[in-house]
Amino acid sequence: MANITKKVSWSSRTDESGAAGEGTPLLNGSEQSRLSRQDSARGRLHEIPHNEKLLSLKYESLDYDNIENQLFLEEERRMSFMSFRCLEISRWVVCGLIGFLTGLIACFIDIVVEQLAGIKYRVIKENIVKFTEAGGLSISLILWAVLNSSFVMLGAILVAFFEPIAAGSGIPQIKCYLNGVKIPRVVRLKTLVVKVCGVICSVVGGLAVGKEGPMIHSGAVVAAGVSQGRSTSLKRDFKIFEYFRRDTEKRDFVSAGAAAGVSAAFGAPVGGVLFSLEEGASFWNQMLTWRIFFASMISTFTLNFFLSIYNKKPGELSNPGLINFGRFESEIMEYNLYEIPLFIAMGALGGILGALFNVLNYWLTIFRIRYVHRPCLQVMEAMLVAAVTATVAFTMIYFSNDCQPLGPEHTEEYPLQLFCADGEYNSMATAFFNTPEKSVRSLFHNQPGTYNPLTLGLFTLTYFFLACWTYGLSVSAGVFIPSLLIGAAWGRLCGILLASLTSTNTPWADPGKYALIGAAAQLGGIVRMTLSLTVIMVEATGNVTYGLPIMLVLMTAKIVGDYFQEGLYDIHIKLQSVPFLHWDAPATSHWLTAREVMSSPVTCLNRIEKVGTIVDTLSNTSTNHNGFPVVVQVSDSDEPAKLCGLILRSQLIVLLKHKVFVELAQSRLTQRKLQLKDFRDAYPRFPPIQSIHVSQDERECMMDLTEFMNTTPYTVPQDTSLPRVFKLFRALGLRHLVVVDDNRVVGLVTRKDLARYHLGKHGLEELHLAQT
Amino acid sequence: MANITKKVSWSSRTDESGAAGEGTPLLNGSEQSRLSRQDSARGRLHEIPHNEKLLSLKYESLDYDNIENQLFLEEERRMSFMSFRCLEISRWVVCGLIGFLTGLIACFIDIVVEQLAGIKYRVIKENIVKFTEAGGLSISLILWAVLNSSFVMLGAILVAFFEPIAAGSGIPQIKCYLNGVKIPRVVRLKTLVVKVCGVICSVVGGLAVGKEGPMIHSGAVVAAGVSQGRSTSLKRDFKIFEYFRRDTEKRDFVSAGAAAGVSAAFGAPVGGVLFSLEEGASFWNQMLTWRIFFASMISTFTLNFFLSIYNKKPGELSNPGLINFGRFESEIMEYNLYEIPLFIAMGALGGILGALFNVLNYWLTIFRIRYVHRPCLQVMEAMLVAAVTATVAFTMIYFSNDCQPLGPEHTEEYPLQLFCADGEYNSMATAFFNTPEKSVRSLFHNQPGTYNPLTLGLFTLTYFFLACWTYGLSVSAGVFIPSLLIGAAWGRLCGILLASLTSTNTPWADPGKYALIGAAAQLGGIVRMTLSLTVIMVEATGNVTYGLPIMLVLMTAKIVGDYFQEGLYDIHIKLQSVPFLHWDAPATSHWLTAREVMSSPVTCLNRIEKVGTIVDTLSNTSTNHNGFPVVVQVSDSDEPAKLCGLILRSQLIVLLKHKVFVELAQSRLTQRKLQLKDFRDAYPRFPPIQSIHVSQDERECMMDLTEFMNTTPYTVPQDTSLPRVFKLFRALGLRHLVVVDDNRVVGLVTRKDLARYHLGKHGLEELHLAQT
Repeated sequence: MANITKKVSWSSRTDESGAAGEGTPLLNGSEQSRLSRQDSARGRLHEIPHNEKLLSLKYESLDYDNIENQLFLEEERRMSFMSFRCLEISRWVVCGLIGFLTGLIACFIDIVVEQLAGIKYRVIKENIVKFTEAGGLSISLILWAVLNSSFVMLGAILVAFFEPIAAGSGIPQIKCYLNGVKIPRVVRLKTLVVKVCGVICSVVGGLAVGKEGPMIHSGAVVAAGVSQGRSTSLKRDFKIFEYFRRDTEKRDFVSAGAAAGVSAAFGAPVGGVLFSLEEGASFWNQMLTWRIFFASMISTFTLNFFLSIYNKKPGELSNPGLINFGRFESEIMEYNLYEIPLFIAMGALGGILGALFNVLNYWLTIFRIRYVHRPCLQVMEAMLVAAVTATVAFTMIYFSNDCQPLGPEHTEEYPLQLFCADGEYNSMATAFFNTPEKSVRSLFHNQPGTYNPLTLGLFTLTYFFLACWTYGLSVSAGVFIPSLLIGAAWGRLCGILLASLTSTNTPWADPGKYALIGAAAQLGGIVRMTLSLTVIMVEATGNVTYGLPIMLVLMTAKIVGDYFQEGLYDIHIKLQSVPFLHWDAPATSHWLTAREVMSSPVTCLNRIEKVGTIVDTLSNTSTNHNGFPVVVQVSDSDEPAKLCGLILRSQLIVLLKHKVFVELAQSRLTQRKLQLKDFRDAYPRFPPIQSIHVSQDERECMMDLTEFMNTTPYTVPQDTSLPRVFKLFRALGLRHLVVVDDNRVVGLVTRKDLARYHLGKHGLEELHLAQT
Repeated sequence: MANITKKVSWSSRTDESGAAGEGTPLLNGSEQSRLSRQDSARGRLHEIPHNEKLLSLKYESLDYDNIENQLFLEEERRMSFMSFRCLEISRWVVCGLIGFLTGLIACFIDIVVEQLAGIKYRVIKENIVKFTEAGGLSISLILWAVLNSSFVMLGAILVAFFEPIAAGSGIPQIKCYLNGVKIPRVVRLKTLVVKVCGVICSVVGGLAVGKEGPMIHSGAVVAAGVSQGRSTSLKRDFKIFEYFRRDTEKRDFVSAGAAAGVSAAFGAPVGGVLFSLEEGASFWNQMLTWRIFFASMISTFTLNFFLSIYNKKPGELSNPGLINFGRFESEIMEYNLYEIPLFIAMGALGGILGALFNVLNYWLTIFRIRYVHRPCLQVMEAMLVAAVTATVAFTMIYFSNDCQPLGPEHTEEYPLQLFCADGEYNSMATAFFNTPEKSVRSLFHNQPGTYNPLTLGLFTLTYFFLACWTYGLSVSAGVFIPSLLIGAAWGRLCGILLASLTSTNTPWADPGKYALIGAAAQLGGIVRMTLSLTVIMVEATGNVTYGLPIMLVLMTAKIVGDYFQEGLYDIHIKLQSVPFLHWDAPATSHWLTAREVMSSPVTCLNRIEKVGTIVDTLSNTSTNHNGFPVVVQVSDSDEPAKLCGLILRSQLIVLLKHKVFVELAQSRLTQRKLQLKDFRDAYPRFPPIQSIHVSQDERECMMDLTEFMNTTPYTVPQDTSLPRVFKLFRALGLRHLVVVDDNRVVGLVTRKDLARYHLGKHGLEELHLAQT
């Protein structure tokens, strides 16, 4: 069982280190109860073959709170006003760079995909044309399937063997990161490379995927890299931006990167900012938001600029975004009051279809967790999906008899004539024989009558299942575009049906409008974002008019969808057992107080502590927590000790590595003092305690933590209610919150303690903690 | 001097109560130093005749933190999940209502202004036509000036005599409210009525003002009213939404109201949300943001819907907002890379002009504070401005010889022929003889060549000074539209000059584009908002393309403007000495710790306290603070006592009013217990302590505060650095933060203690506290 859970985890690589502690108690203290909890969890696991009722202990929190120790304060106090201003300027520079690079990556992906897809479709088209008359279209089918599968194989191998965390859209992972959970390897350079190559392969491989979702992940990786001024993977340190080497700053930049990604993907800078805020920022800071906005703007702008050069219209900057829904002219697109109930009904339909999609994908994911966890199996599944997609598409096109005349403007890029008369083309092929982005655009904008209802119905049905099967494969790919495409198809269908019911009424004549509403409904039903999605849709259509209808549709889709099943990203986050903190504590949790929630007893350290004790504490797998309250004189009595600070595991490790012992300090007075720089250099990959050698003599030395501990950790009394603890924790992005009774340490609240509680169907439920 | 400060204060009415404490020490403790501080402040005041270096003690904080006492927790624990869901639904209903009513008010203002202005302009036009040939245009001038003055007089009398706080745009006041400062009477029904009537009068009176700013204030008042389910002014209690009768909930709704106001004014729902967040919300909450967005959407929608009926095109919902910049067609409006430096230069110009505007207005405000503080003088000044505006406009029109042919579409509403040939009209009159909204639109959209450069130059110059003189008058009026108008005029001028320089180049041929950029630059230079303003401009133009240029322009304008002078709203906030908390603590304030910042010693109460002591504490004007730490046994020794809770002045007053004494409790066991409802009924206008009669016998009774105090107030150790204290205070919207040393109360940090510190030209400066 443990194996199964492990194999799908986003960070299976780090499990080795965790494996040692598998059988040991989990958090500090309450070992009895926790153990029994875990046991019962394991017992249940054999019955229920998935782990959404578990909370993994593997994930650590990011430290959004500054560690205000003496070193930090001294540095801040040394800094003049000008230094702060310089810092602020370099933050802007970094954000500009993030935007620029994200835009470049988006541009690269776009151009490569377009080129490769162009080659692929031309080859297949020629082949089809050749065999249409000669007979033997099955050869074309095989060619298509083989081409698709080979691209997808390449992408899947990259992902499955080299960097499993690059699978999928990356949005759930970035959501978690912005929420404050450290997902291992999620913002590494290697992940970015695999992601970019992977997404090109899967889009060119004709899967029902989009290239937009992965942009968000790419932007985040770029941000995490650029802001640190060095690459650990490439072992290059540019000695710049050293001040930003801590979780607080890094997380801010990653927000900007994610926003820049959204902005590049959808041409939606404001949507990007709102996405970052909706998913990430707990504490809204004006300057930060401006910087995020700046990164977003630069990103769209860069993409536009280079694409305009590529498209041989240099300097024309008015057509932003990877996906562009085309311009909706407001004259055609007017809506009327009586259409609003229709829109809401479509929203409800989107919610239901979205929930269905999510339920199917949930089952599929469970299946994959159980049976498809070996990389080679994953590659094979991806190839199978690619081949099936090609086959289904080909069959649909083959049996479709929806022939449409080729218009004079000739907007279809690869019109397939097949068995249609000369001067006509197969309408089903516009939807299938194209990159999904272009299909969406043609559904939005093609003249009324371009598609017949049967084509649209069949297309919706098949694409729905294909997209559902595809999401969760071990390839880099987004779910935005397939969702939009499904929605646009049935939305256009609705529009056509409405128009046919009331043939004389002009406002209903344009099915493109309904395609847009359908697309919003379907996407909203699947991912359940509302605020940012509204803005993204509005920006991508370039038309503000549709704000209210889209918002109503998205809200309806969310309400209806939530009734059945969670959003797709939340499902996947839950299946990974990530300790994700929502916006508020569960409504009915006022019953609980810090006393019930906290971990207790806590391992505390003395202000001047024996090195041996520290090493033992850190090595002890049963106390694998990351923050230790520092106390004044732990007496032998049972009385808890008085709190005077908090120190992190990572700090202790650096101290041990540099052998900052009291005895040595006297003998090497001339030597330089430990500085913040030493901590920054070790960030973010602090070595494990096992790699640090401490001799037997050194074990007898003493370590003075006064200078390094955070002397003013946030505390709460033990009677504080859970919502209050939650609010403090969430608003300040804490990692450890010390629970005190009259300034004596009685417990410690961490992310896992808070994320455990959630509202289930039978009121407040508690998730079980598990090592995996 | 005190008199002067008082007269301009936003809340002069409450000064009477404060007057008693004028000569007494101010905050709890440190009386010596505070007093001397105040004295020196007074000394300086005689030299410097304004009070921006002061921080008024008059303003109280809002309590954004829930008071988690036993009563509250019991109520929350009694509530089922369904009750929470119902609450959530009623929050949505309230937001919907807020949006609807705000939209209605906007619609009302718009229609009334349009009707009245129509009548006025028609009357004057007829008169001018009559006298143009007969000679004697001075009669027309007098008619115009008298009409204007009478409207303005009406508006100014309403504001000056009935509700001075309704003066101006209300945005600074709402900024303060959302920041957490309780500005007296700012969200009352009377204020709303005066505001609405006042803004109609001043716009119809032809002042250089807009009707958009006041919408934000109106929305906020609507929100504060609707969410409470009662009107204290009308003495009606609808017995609904009782749960929302506390600062936390009310402030959330006021955010929604302000957003709805922006949304109605500019047709910018997303801009509204961002405005609220930029100005208000410290803790970003997803559900709250959605509700705000919902209110904004409903508000735009309502306005649209009713205006579409008024305009005889019912159901046409695509033209939102009070101010509508008209549709910018993207074909004409394309911009090119090489235009971006031009835009940035225009942004810099906007910043300089904006700073000039602000400096002039600052001096003017100081002048007004000193000499124009009596209501009748204020009314007279307003009338004078109205008359001068009319005269200047008339003179400009009279001496202008910019005649333009009347086009076939005939877009000018009141074309004045004057001395032009038949079939032509006076171009200066389009700008002056019109409501400012329409002038802006014509500057954006009229054909190239409609204005000649001299007209635009003269118009910019005169309107700039008129607008500057007008802002700060005792009338309800906004500064958005005048700023846009000034900017549009010089922007268009730039465009014309550029076009004339490069006559062959098509992209520079359209001056409307430059008018838009100029408008953004000027507005940005004056108000210095960036994020929300970008979105508002983008939404109001209905065109996403201009996002990046507008953003760059606004950022440049802000950077350049900040170099010279603060934003207009900030100037006015500072002149009122409001303890406004910015986003972060000053950068170089790590030197300071809670110990230096806090007020100390603090008046503490015992858990079971003698009624007499409480009454004395509350009556003592030298301890006019609003929160009292509750401690266990204040011994007679000097050692500080152990903290066990925090209780508010308002709570104590309610307790005294209901005579919740230990002795009485035993004698009236059958009587009902004090409930949360009793506190809610008294909210928000708690009676002063003087109005509560406590007999000599009762003074000897004891009061048990256990049940009513907040048992888990947030605390910080006294070594906490100012930025850390600031962050906690700001992120959680606190009102009192107890400073402890080993759980013993040593001080109390309130808003004033934090707002005191700011970055001046010579590093960190401390503002002086003053009673006024």
